[in-house]
Amino acid sequence: MKDSEKIITLNHGSGGKISHDLISGLFLKYFNNKILNRLSDSAVIDSFEEKLSFTTDAFVVEPIFFPGGNIGKLAVCGTVNDLAVSGAVPKYLSASFIIEEGFSITDLEKIIKSIAEEASMAGVAIVTGDTKVVPKGKCDKIFISTSGIGFLKKEFENIGLATKVKTGDKLVVNGTLGDHAIAILASRESLKFETEILSDCSSLNHLIQKSLTVCPHITFMRDITRGGLTTIAVELASMIKKGIMLNEADIPVKEGVQAVCEIFGFDPLILANEGKVLMAVPPEYAGSVLENLRNDPLGQDAAIIGEFTDDHPGKVVLKTIAGGKRLVDMPAGVQLPRIC
Amino acid sequence: MKDSEKIITLNHGSGGKISHDLISGLFLKYFNNKILNRLSDSAVIDSFEEKLSFTTDAFVVEPIFFPGGNIGKLAVCGTVNDLAVSGAVPKYLSASFIIEEGFSITDLEKIIKSIAEEASMAGVAIVTGDTKVVPKGKCDKIFISTSGIGFLKKEFENIGLATKVKTGDKLVVNGTLGDHAIAILASRESLKFETEILSDCSSLNHLIQKSLTVCPHITFMRDITRGGLTTIAVELASMIKKGIMLNEADIPVKEGVQAVCEIFGFDPLILANEGKVLMAVPPEYAGSVLENLRNDPLGQDAAIIGEFTDDHPGKVVLKTIAGGKRLVDMPAGVQLPRIC
Repeated sequence: MKDSEKIITLNHGSGGKISHDLISGLFLKYFNNKILNRLSDSAVIDSFEEKLSFTTDAFVVEPIFFPGGNIGKLAVCGTVNDLAVSGAVPKYLSASFIIEEGFSITDLEKIIKSIAEEASMAGVAIVTGDTKVVPKGKCDKIFISTSGIGFLKKEFENIGLATKVKTGDKLVVNGTLGDHAIAILASRESLKFETEILSDCSSLNHLIQKSLTVCPHITFMRDITRGGLTTIAVELASMIKKGIMLNEADIPVKEGVQAVCEIFGFDPLILANEGKVLMAVPPEYAGSVLENLRNDPLGQDAAIIGEFTDDHPGKVVLKTIAGGKRLVDMPAGVQLPRIC
Repeated sequence: MKDSEKIITLNHGSGGKISHDLISGLFLKYFNNKILNRLSDSAVIDSFEEKLSFTTDAFVVEPIFFPGGNIGKLAVCGTVNDLAVSGAVPKYLSASFIIEEGFSITDLEKIIKSIAEEASMAGVAIVTGDTKVVPKGKCDKIFISTSGIGFLKKEFENIGLATKVKTGDKLVVNGTLGDHAIAILASRESLKFETEILSDCSSLNHLIQKSLTVCPHITFMRDITRGGLTTIAVELASMIKKGIMLNEADIPVKEGVQAVCEIFGFDPLILANEGKVLMAVPPEYAGSVLENLRNDPLGQDAAIIGEFTDDHPGKVVLKTIAGGKRLVDMPAGVQLPRIC
């Protein structure tokens, strides 16, 4: 295909391999600078006594209201979590809205109210914003972009880069995987469950701050969103050239989520979450970090799901429930578009 | 009309009265905080030794390529200018993209390249970003949201609030009004001119920094975008409860722009600009500020266009070329949708 014939596909927004190629091939090529090149979710900016963390995300989720949240709540959680996993205390958010002509102001108010409530819960202020309206048919209801600033202690500035991870460090998640994606799918397909599956959409900053207080030795954190656990694990292994072994039996997945995955042929490990964090913790601290997580409503189902190895450096191996081992790779494209 | 029947109209995004009502009635109601309530284009954030300025804007301009710029260049200029008029030195930008499935990657590359070039010219770095893709028909080609952080000296922190403006202060603009809006209109309508009208889309931060160096006594600055000169003048008069007198004869408007305005029945004073700043300057400094502006390529057509009065406090009066005087008011809605 000639360069001039290349078009954007849904896969470019998937968070998988094709997204990565677009970002490195195009964005990094032009925007090339030390801060961006870290390719962490937040920009860490030298400033005065402390560091600043600065991040942005666009939210285009469909449907805009879903079990467990809506696009407004999501737009706060997503940006708060990006700041929190950088080690920062999230402080200030901006919100910019692109709204379709004809959109219900009642719905807009619900969204705005939800943004305000979630921001208050997370302890951040929405300090600046913008609103654009486009003619009917030129966007789908409402899109929201949020940016955030957080204050970051110097000791945590490289936590997103995993520079301190050692072989034997444990991988910990704060709960079940795939809830958000399945909640979205269920509302699109009007699936009915015995127990409704809610999106896990939530601001993790307080949980993360508590974890860093209990254990300042956490060596890596990343929120598990588009692309799921697999994508992050593969990125992480390849970034620090260590092996990762994941134990399928230890990875928490809700029964309902597992059931839907079997019906649709989805892999819960590549499904999106909006309230999950992956942490790397030195083995001697893993127990206390886990206990601390489980004492929080957002970490009740926390689990140790794997560890870093010297074997197969740069690769991720899954020890399956059946007892086998298989190499896992980043999904090439998108399982579910417009998940966030 | 019942509340539940209210819908978003293009006027809600116009920057005029209806936008203002939406923002105060909905956004401020929920997001209520001291920083946001300033309703300045940038959030001024207490931090360490200096202040931070933080701003965001969504860009949905149509067409995405227009004479004098494109949506990428615009997305940098708009945010840089919001920071610059707050008195800050713009430093870091985020960029989040919402792209329609099927969008040309060649066009995306042109846009990205243009963002990089304009950022480099303005001396800012794009330090973080995000990309979402929505299915064909769910947005119109590409939307970009940029946020920016700038560093702000304490002495300038209230420049956007005009707290130091005194009666007799002069109003200065750095050039002709309406160029951006007419360039957009011309490309939509395929109008041909003897001399093509280019958008004035440009980063004003260096020009503004030079002005603040020549005259740290500048008492107000705002970039003149959606809603045009009239909207800003009316907001300003009402904010500080002083009168403003504008001299139509002194307001620079290109002949071609004037001609198009006459044909379409537009008022150049409410047309959008993307490279224009309105400054308030004590009369004793107005001459040197004007000279300094005129020595810069972005200020060649700078002019003193009016002054603050004790008469008609809170109102804006235009002394017309014909010699009459008339009260001007904020436009209620939108002249041209998707201008930025």
